[in-house]
Amino acid sequence: MKYAIGIDIGGTNTVFGIVSEVGECIAEDRMRTDAFDDAEEYVRVLTAGIQVLLRSNAEALERDGEVIGIGIGAPNGNYYKGTVENAPNLKWKGVIPLADMIKEFFNLPVVLTNDANAAAIGEMIFGAAKGMKDFFVITLGTGLGSGFVANGKMIYGHTGFAGELGHMIIFENGRMCGCGRKGCLETYASATGIVKTVKKMLRNSNEESILRDMDFEEITSKKIYEAAKKGDKIALDAFDYTGKILALGLANAVAITSPEAIILLGGLTQSGDYIFNPAKKYFEEYLLNNFKGTVKLLPSAISGKNAAVLGAAAMVFSD
Amino acid sequence: MKYAIGIDIGGTNTVFGIVSEVGECIAEDRMRTDAFDDAEEYVRVLTAGIQVLLRSNAEALERDGEVIGIGIGAPNGNYYKGTVENAPNLKWKGVIPLADMIKEFFNLPVVLTNDANAAAIGEMIFGAAKGMKDFFVITLGTGLGSGFVANGKMIYGHTGFAGELGHMIIFENGRMCGCGRKGCLETYASATGIVKTVKKMLRNSNEESILRDMDFEEITSKKIYEAAKKGDKIALDAFDYTGKILALGLANAVAITSPEAIILLGGLTQSGDYIFNPAKKYFEEYLLNNFKGTVKLLPSAISGKNAAVLGAAAMVFSD
Repeated sequence: MKYAIGIDIGGTNTVFGIVSEVGECIAEDRMRTDAFDDAEEYVRVLTAGIQVLLRSNAEALERDGEVIGIGIGAPNGNYYKGTVENAPNLKWKGVIPLADMIKEFFNLPVVLTNDANAAAIGEMIFGAAKGMKDFFVITLGTGLGSGFVANGKMIYGHTGFAGELGHMIIFENGRMCGCGRKGCLETYASATGIVKTVKKMLRNSNEESILRDMDFEEITSKKIYEAAKKGDKIALDAFDYTGKILALGLANAVAITSPEAIILLGGLTQSGDYIFNPAKKYFEEYLLNNFKGTVKLLPSAISGKNAAVLGAAAMVFSD
Repeated sequence: MKYAIGIDIGGTNTVFGIVSEVGECIAEDRMRTDAFDDAEEYVRVLTAGIQVLLRSNAEALERDGEVIGIGIGAPNGNYYKGTVENAPNLKWKGVIPLADMIKEFFNLPVVLTNDANAAAIGEMIFGAAKGMKDFFVITLGTGLGSGFVANGKMIYGHTGFAGELGHMIIFENGRMCGCGRKGCLETYASATGIVKTVKKMLRNSNEESILRDMDFEEITSKKIYEAAKKGDKIALDAFDYTGKILALGLANAVAITSPEAIILLGGLTQSGDYIFNPAKKYFEEYLLNNFKGTVKLLPSAISGKNAAVLGAAAMVFSD
């Protein structure tokens, strides 16, 4: 059996684990990302943690297999260079040669890409996109991440940063985006986006709503989901609108790549049918005739606590 | 030397020729497409024309080479099936198995795709995209066609119809499109789109303009170009607006595929700097920071009378 180390680097936490080629995570640990102002110190602690994990599972690994590589999913990860570049939600600024820094501690190949690309490869190797050659993955969290696969290969593009569907401008002069431009898809279709939509709806209507009783700062996508379950009209309207704008962005992307499926994952998809139903309805409406009925909208098949680690490890098996 | 037959099928004319593997068109002929209500009769005349072309060049072909295949660029061409499907500007309705029909007359492999994809392969093999692995081609004619290459391979997608950037919805509830939806990019960024823009500008302003002296039906993209050369403000504003909307669509596509270059061809690009300058300016403005300065906007390097035939033939050499 072959194994890979998967590392998922988030703004707050880093999770890492040992994953088998059949998608089983046999051991996992975590550490804070944001406790380290300095990437070198972070790498020392991370690699020590991985060494501990490997030693405590040495028996299993020696009995039936070998570790063949390390895969990393990181914000603003550049696949070609193995670097993390100016990630807004990490403390380390500039260009960090993370893959090379980790390689110094292990005699193993190290591959690195952004978290959404890692998720896409995870779905292709272990999840909902098994056997597919043309699909893409959308992560609906704080922002909207995406990873595109065409002809069975990840699209990294010329820069290594392809797959920024969240920054497709969907409304010229629309909502302010963290990227400095206006009207990006992720300012509408994300956990953050639906909160903005609810706040706007509360301001612009007199409709009764459970959400009106909260401080504006308390409103989260989870609270909107809970309100929707109770039949709250503002919450339901916000899911409808979010699904609609998401659908418009997805239909535009389909016009370019014509995928077999789009896999949706991340925090906002925990709301299940409340987001999937409007997304599916408007998606079919927005699609060009050629593509109507040809694209499945699917939930992740590896979501759960190990998903990001499995995705990162999957890169090693796909390379 | 290897040769291929290239066939470019347009709504009005069909052009076909014999192209060498170094991109020289050694012989070419043409026929009407719209003279045939029936695809079978069309194929009989077309294949007879190709036979004549092959016979009259038999000496050259026998001396130094062989014909290895036939490539076809056709509206609504499906690469996987070799079919032309419900092309709005062809008289043959339904699904026409054109590749198979032509194969019956020749003992050669036949490949078929849409005209923009053929153009993209032409640029990759013979033109401005030589050596590039990630780029796309935009044809600005009656509509806006596009062909995307990633990882050195054409993106046909799951359906075979990928690359419909012209039908990215750029303004919800925007201009009516021939596809039945509203606000598609091609209703703004195409030879037809700029004419619509000029007509709207003439209606909504009192600005003096050479174009105001024409019948509305006489206004073409070529006339707008001629007016622009004379410094006509409406014409210049229309190019500026067209370049801007084109740039927005291109920037959105770049966010997905991160190409090294975008190659622009087709009727509207005959206007040179009048369309390229505003397109380049707004393109850099619209790009996400990661991509600024990473994408070249280039004119075709195989434009001219044989471009479409070269593109169709190039498919044979790339396959």
